[in-house]
Amino acid sequence: MPLSRRLTAEFIGTALLLAAIVGSGIMGEALSRGNAAVALLANAAATAGALYALIVILAPISGAHFNPAVTVVAHLHGDLSRRDAVAYIVVQTVTAIAGVLLAHAMFDLPLLQAGTQVRTGASQWLSEAVATFGLILTIVLGVRHRPVAVPALVASHIFAAYWFTASTSFANPAVTLARALTTTFAGIRPEDVPAFVAAQAAGTFVAIKAVGFLRPAHA
Amino acid sequence: MPLSRRLTAEFIGTALLLAAIVGSGIMGEALSRGNAAVALLANAAATAGALYALIVILAPISGAHFNPAVTVVAHLHGDLSRRDAVAYIVVQTVTAIAGVLLAHAMFDLPLLQAGTQVRTGASQWLSEAVATFGLILTIVLGVRHRPVAVPALVASHIFAAYWFTASTSFANPAVTLARALTTTFAGIRPEDVPAFVAAQAAGTFVAIKAVGFLRPAHA
Amino acid sequence: MPLSRRLTAEFIGTALLLAAIVGSGIMGEALSRGNAAVALLANAAATAGALYALIVILAPISGAHFNPAVTVVAHLHGDLSRRDAVAYIVVQTVTAIAGVLLAHAMFDLPLLQAGTQVRTGASQWLSEAVATFGLILTIVLGVRHRPVAVPALVASHIFAAYWFTASTSFANPAVTLARALTTTFAGIRPEDVPAFVAAQAAGTFVAIKAVGFLRPAHA
Amino acid sequence: MPLSRRLTAEFIGTALLLAAIVGSGIMGEALSRGNAAVALLANAAATAGALYALIVILAPISGAHFNPAVTVVAHLHGDLSRRDAVAYIVVQTVTAIAGVLLAHAMFDLPLLQAGTQVRTGASQWLSEAVATFGLILTIVLGVRHRPVAVPALVASHIFAAYWFTASTSFANPAVTLARALTTTFAGIRPEDVPAFVAAQAAGTFVAIKAVGFLRPAHA
Repeated sequence: MPLSRRLTAEFIGTALLLAAIVGSGIMGEALSRGNAAVALLANAAATAGALYALIVILAPISGAHFNPAVTVVAHLHGDLSRRDAVAYIVVQTVTAIAGVLLAHAMFDLPLLQAGTQVRTGASQWLSEAVATFGLILTIVLGVRHRPVAVPALVASHIFAAYWFTASTSFANPAVTLARALTTTFAGIRPEDVPAFVAAQAAGTFVAIKAVGFLRPAHA
Repeated sequence: MPLSRRLTAEFIGTALLLAAIVGSGIMGEALSRGNAAVALLANAAATAGALYALIVILAPISGAHFNPAVTVVAHLHGDLSRRDAVAYIVVQTVTAIAGVLLAHAMFDLPLLQAGTQVRTGASQWLSEAVATFGLILTIVLGVRHRPVAVPALVASHIFAAYWFTASTSFANPAVTLARALTTTFAGIRPEDVPAFVAAQAAGTFVAIKAVGFLRPAHA
Repeated sequence: MPLSRRLTAEFIGTALLLAAIVGSGIMGEALSRGNAAVALLANAAATAGALYALIVILAPISGAHFNPAVTVVAHLHGDLSRRDAVAYIVVQTVTAIAGVLLAHAMFDLPLLQAGTQVRTGASQWLSEAVATFGLILTIVLGVRHRPVAVPALVASHIFAAYWFTASTSFANPAVTLARALTTTFAGIRPEDVPAFVAAQAAGTFVAIKAVGFLRPAHA
Repeated sequence: MPLSRRLTAEFIGTALLLAAIVGSGIMGEALSRGNAAVALLANAAATAGALYALIVILAPISGAHFNPAVTVVAHLHGDLSRRDAVAYIVVQTVTAIAGVLLAHAMFDLPLLQAGTQVRTGASQWLSEAVATFGLILTIVLGVRHRPVAVPALVASHIFAAYWFTASTSFANPAVTLARALTTTFAGIRPEDVPAFVAAQAAGTFVAIKAVGFLRPAHA
C-alpha cells in the first residue's frame, strides 16, 4: 500500500475519531441537564462505537493507529520505517485538530477555542499512565493472540478506561493535544498537555516491557 | 433471488427499522422525564440493535440496504441494475412511511402527523453530510475488507453518529422523508427534508471519491 | 442428547432468563429514583446480556428455546417431535415461574405475588404481535443464514423491542404467564395474559408465512 | 508457558480488573448526582468491557482466571496442578488488593480503607450463589461448546448479574476480599466477606454438579 493512501486512512480515521469524541461530549453535555454520568456514558459509548468501526475498515490500509503511541510501538516492532512513523505522527496530530474543528462546525460553535478544563496532578498522570499501559497491552497482545478481535478489544478497553481512570483516559498524545483546542466536555487546558503526554509515554514504556516479558518465545 | 423476494426483504427491514427508530424515540421521551440524554441513549442503542439484527438476517436476501443512498452506491458498483435500484428506492420510501405509521399505532398515537421539529442550518447540513460520508465509507470498506462484520459496523457507526452529529444522524433519504411524518422525538419538519437529502447526497458523493482513492488496485 | 438433559437445559435457561428479566427490573426500579427510562435501559441491557450467554451455552444441548413460540416453530420445521415439544413447553412454563420466585427471593420480596400492572388494549396487542413476529423472523432467518450469530441476533432484537414496542416486548407466552406473578417493574395483570398470548400467536403465524415466502427454495 | 509468566498474566489481569470495578464505581458515584442506577449502569458496562478485553488478551497465557473459584474448577478438570492452583489463588488475592489501591491512587483517595457497605442476609447470600453458579456454568459450558466466545460470554453474564442479583454479583472470592478494602461504591464490610465467599463456594459446587449432568459423554 503506497504511503499516500496509508496517510489518507490515518487522516480520515483520526479526524472522525476526534469528531466522535468531541462531538458526543458536546451532545451529551447539552442534553443531560447537568447529569455528567449520563453525558460520560454517551461519550464513552459513542467513542467505542466509532473506534470499532474505524479500526475495522481502516486497519487493512494503514494499521489504523490514529495514535502516536501506537505508531511508536509499531515502529519498535519493525512494522513501520522511522520515516513512515514520523509521517504518521505528523498526520495524526494535524488531523486530530481537524477533527476537533469539524465537531465545532457541526455543533455551530466557534472553530478556534483554547481548552479550560483543569486536568493536572499526580492522580491524573497516574490515570493516563495506566490507561495507556492498558491500551498498548491490549493492542500488542491482541495482535499476537487474536488479531481479528483487535477493533472490539480497543473499543472495550477505551470504554472501560473512560470510567475507571480519573482522567477519563486520553491515552493518545495527538488526541490530548487536539482536545486542548476545545472548551467543551472533552477539553483540557493547554498547559496540562505536556504532563499528560509524558505520563502516556511512561505507560507505553512499561507496556513494552510487560509484553516483552509475556512473549512466548521467552519460554 | 427473484426481485419480488428481495423487495419483500427491503420492505420488512425498512418498516421495522423505522418502527424501531420512531418507537424507541417515543418510549424514551415518555419515560425519561425530560432528560433527553437518556432518551437519545435508548434511541441510539435500540436503533443499533435493530439495525444489526435486520442486516444480518436480510442481507443474504436483498443486501439489506434500507437506504436509497446505499442502493445508489450499490448500483454504481454494478451490484444492481438501474431498474432494480429504482424499485428498491420506491419500496424503501413507501415502507419507511409504513414503519412510522406502525410505531404510531403501537403507541396509540394519531397515525398521520406532520413533523414539527426544526432541523435546519449549515451545522445540521454539515452533520448530515458527515454522517452519510461515514456510513457509506463504513459499508463500502467493510464489504471490501471484512464482509461478515458489516452489520456490527453499521450499527456501531450509527450509534456513534447519533451522538457526534448535531442532527443525530439521519443519513438516509427514505428515513428522513418518513420522519417528516411524526411529531415525536425522532421527527423533522417537512420543509427541512430537501436540504437534509441534499446534504446526504453530498456526503455520499465525497465517500464514493474517498473509497475510490483508497482502493488497493490503485497501488 | 437424551430428553432429560435437554429439558434440564431448558429448565436452567428459562429460570435464569426470568430471574434476569424480573431481577434487573427490581434493581432498576429501586435505584433509578423514578426515572423509568434508566430502569428500562438497565432492564433491557441485562436481559440481552443474559439471553446472549444462555443461548450460546445451552443451544448445543436443547436448542435454547426458553419460549413456547420458538418450540412450536421448531416443531413445525421438524426439529422436534410433538411429544418433545409438549415436554419443552411444560418445562418452560413451570421453570419461568421458578425464575420469578428466584428473583423475589434474591431481593427479599414475598415469593408469591399477583401482577398488578395494566397492559391491555389494541396498541399493546399490536406491540406484542410485532415483537413476536420480529423474534421468530430473527431466529428462523438467523438459523438459515448465519447460525453462529443467533445468540447475538436474539439479544439485539429483544433489546431493541423492549424500547420500540409499547408493551416492552414480552414475545413469549411462558414469560408472559410467569410475569403475571410479580407486582414489580416487569409485571403484568393476570387478566391481561390471554390477549398477550393470542397476540404472540398471531405474530408467530405471520412470521411463519413471511419466512416461508422468503425461502430460497421458492426461486 | 512457564509458571512465572502465567502468574504475571494473572497479576496484571486481576489488578486491572479490580481497578476497573472500583474505579468505575468511584467515577459513577461522583458524576451521577445520587442516581445510583446510572452509576451501576456505568460500573457494570465498564466491568464488562475490561473483562472482555483482559480475558481475550491474557487467556492464551494463563487461562485468564482472575478468580479462585475458576481456578478451583480448572484444577478439578485437570487443567492445573494443585501447586499451580495454590500459586494462582495467592497471586489473585494479593493483586486484587493491589488493584483496589491503584483505583484509590488514580482517584486521589486514601490508599487504605476498610469497607463500610453492609451486604448481609439470606437474600444477598442467595444472590451470590446464583451469580457464581451462572458464572461457572457460563465458563465451563462456554469452553465446551464455543471457546472463542468465552470472553464475551463472561462479560455478558457479569453485566447481567450486576443487575439481576441483589448483591450486584461479586461472584469471586478474591474480588470480594479486595472490595472489603474500599469504602467507595463497590465496597463491602470486612465482616460480610466470609458468608459471601461461602455462598460463592456453594454456587460453584452446584454448578460443577450441573455441568457434570449436562456433559454429552453421559448419553
